[in-house]
Amino acid sequence: MKTEERGPLSGLVTVKADWDTPAVIILDQTELPNREVYVRLTTPEALWKAIYHLKVRGAPAIGVAVAYGVAVCMRPFADAPFADFFRHFVELKKYLATSRPTAVNLFTALDRMEKCILQHRDLPTPEIVICLQRESEAIRAEDAGACRRIGAWGLGLLTPGMGLLTHCNAGHLAVSEYGTALAPIYLGQERGYQFRVFADETRPLLQGARLTAYELQKAGVDVTLICDNMASVVMKKGWVQAVLVGCDRVAANGDVANKIGTSGVAVLARYYGIPFYVLGPTSTVDLACPRGEEIVIEERKPEEITEKWYARRMAPAGIHVYNPAFDVTSHELVSAIITERGIAYPPYAETLPGLVRSR
Amino acid sequence: MKTEERGPLSGLVTVKADWDTPAVIILDQTELPNREVYVRLTTPEALWKAIYHLKVRGAPAIGVAVAYGVAVCMRPFADAPFADFFRHFVELKKYLATSRPTAVNLFTALDRMEKCILQHRDLPTPEIVICLQRESEAIRAEDAGACRRIGAWGLGLLTPGMGLLTHCNAGHLAVSEYGTALAPIYLGQERGYQFRVFADETRPLLQGARLTAYELQKAGVDVTLICDNMASVVMKKGWVQAVLVGCDRVAANGDVANKIGTSGVAVLARYYGIPFYVLGPTSTVDLACPRGEEIVIEERKPEEITEKWYARRMAPAGIHVYNPAFDVTSHELVSAIITERGIAYPPYAETLPGLVRSR
Repeated sequence: MKTEERGPLSGLVTVKADWDTPAVIILDQTELPNREVYVRLTTPEALWKAIYHLKVRGAPAIGVAVAYGVAVCMRPFADAPFADFFRHFVELKKYLATSRPTAVNLFTALDRMEKCILQHRDLPTPEIVICLQRESEAIRAEDAGACRRIGAWGLGLLTPGMGLLTHCNAGHLAVSEYGTALAPIYLGQERGYQFRVFADETRPLLQGARLTAYELQKAGVDVTLICDNMASVVMKKGWVQAVLVGCDRVAANGDVANKIGTSGVAVLARYYGIPFYVLGPTSTVDLACPRGEEIVIEERKPEEITEKWYARRMAPAGIHVYNPAFDVTSHELVSAIITERGIAYPPYAETLPGLVRSR
Repeated sequence: MKTEERGPLSGLVTVKADWDTPAVIILDQTELPNREVYVRLTTPEALWKAIYHLKVRGAPAIGVAVAYGVAVCMRPFADAPFADFFRHFVELKKYLATSRPTAVNLFTALDRMEKCILQHRDLPTPEIVICLQRESEAIRAEDAGACRRIGAWGLGLLTPGMGLLTHCNAGHLAVSEYGTALAPIYLGQERGYQFRVFADETRPLLQGARLTAYELQKAGVDVTLICDNMASVVMKKGWVQAVLVGCDRVAANGDVANKIGTSGVAVLARYYGIPFYVLGPTSTVDLACPRGEEIVIEERKPEEITEKWYARRMAPAGIHVYNPAFDVTSHELVSAIITERGIAYPPYAETLPGLVRSR
């Protein structure tokens, strides 16, 4: 049995499990857009490295990969007594948790796998292994279902022929099937909506150029790559009728943490009178976080801006660099937050809790 | 005699003439920030290639290089009868005019050199060559003087300790001595103003990372490099009190054509309540152009975004790319236009003509 999480239109597979071998198979995203290389992961170390080196990325995709990984890596202990089996799991969990400490879905997935083992502790261990496989499939299926529903809610806000702009990658390669920000685009593509999509290249890591442009092109979507600083011109020309972005964390007041550059796009959208939509599962909404100022923003290495990707250094040695990985978009700039449970409109402090608590 | 156009604080020389050899000597900007390579240009072909390949760039710097180049390249004809001398000049002018057809200063410089020859047609040709040298020095001196005055006017709008943001390169490397947008920064640096400058890297050609960061760092200015999409965060944090940018052309209503990304920075500045200043000589104001919509924007090759600088391709093959080299910032976003003759404030349709006609 092979379980694939295949892009509905692109044919790309971000993560899949091969239960016969067994192995987790991922598309190595560090090789995109130049080569489609699938990597088989059969050991905890291989899985850890693949996550750490961003071969598989996007919080939901990491969650699915880790869930599959636990099921695969526990197979060698299928004949062990439960106490040994569980001891091996605890070690594995602790180890995998260090691969990408900021990805919430990684911890959620590991916790669910632990709960699954403990729930079935009275079964023979070979059967627990089967339960783990099923649980990892459930995680993937739930994620895919949420993405499809996000796409359906989002599509309701769009009309055929619209120009859309997106930032970074919140598509199939980051999540399951339709992705989040790209979900309405894929759904619209299936229904002949003929969107025209502009993809910000998204410096410094170029997720827009390398990943979003790639997966949309593969899916046959009309996509045009621009530099981040060209979004203003594209909007001014009247080519964009809506902005769609994903989110890494949404505060209780509707402030949105997402890839660096998102807040600038939101300001431009406001100035040019274009709706700015944030798309993500309700699991991304953190009601315990009152507002964006509370969200700690990761700062990354200067070399990502001055050297990475380049054939030679592109900024003087010793130059000061500010390289935040994310930014916070004020809720006042967000037209709507689109989740799998429905659409929240301002004032978010009143509308978000209802959506989230209906989970 | 050597005439140098040395950066007042950086020690860099963008263009200079060596009348003894004779030669035009330029700093090869395509080698920055990795190597400071000075190139001696002694033939029309070498000069043409240096301009075409952007080894010397920035409209005013091109004007100075071409003026020096005419004086240098006419030296071998110093003993020719006037008719032959002038025929060689006309050929040279026609040839050099094709090197960078959009740079207005190139044509202005060539026209001035022609006028100089015709004014002195009754002198012996060796003396005309001396006149050409003097005229080229005058062009350089006028440009440098304009930059110093722009700096002084601009500095009057700033206070010590301010955070400043600039886009692209309108500094010493593009113009003479102080540059335009960077002129108040250099002048403030000399007077101990302790500015903190943020330089947008300016995709796709990275003039901010390669040139602005380089020349400000060499001059001892506190400069921090950011990606273009980080300007919003830096402004939101309250680190920027004024934006300073150059201009390629200003329409009669105050609309400003400048490096791609400028209009986005202007929108952000408006949203965050930060003054947005445009700095340039009055020669950049085109009163014959009523508004920005009339300015034709050059679109450049997709490869600048997908391949240039990179060790490997960074976007999928065949991807659609939109790559405008400039954009137009609406006059309504411009707080003031700072020229060598003074500062124009809105409404520009009323204030600009007075400044320009006082030339």
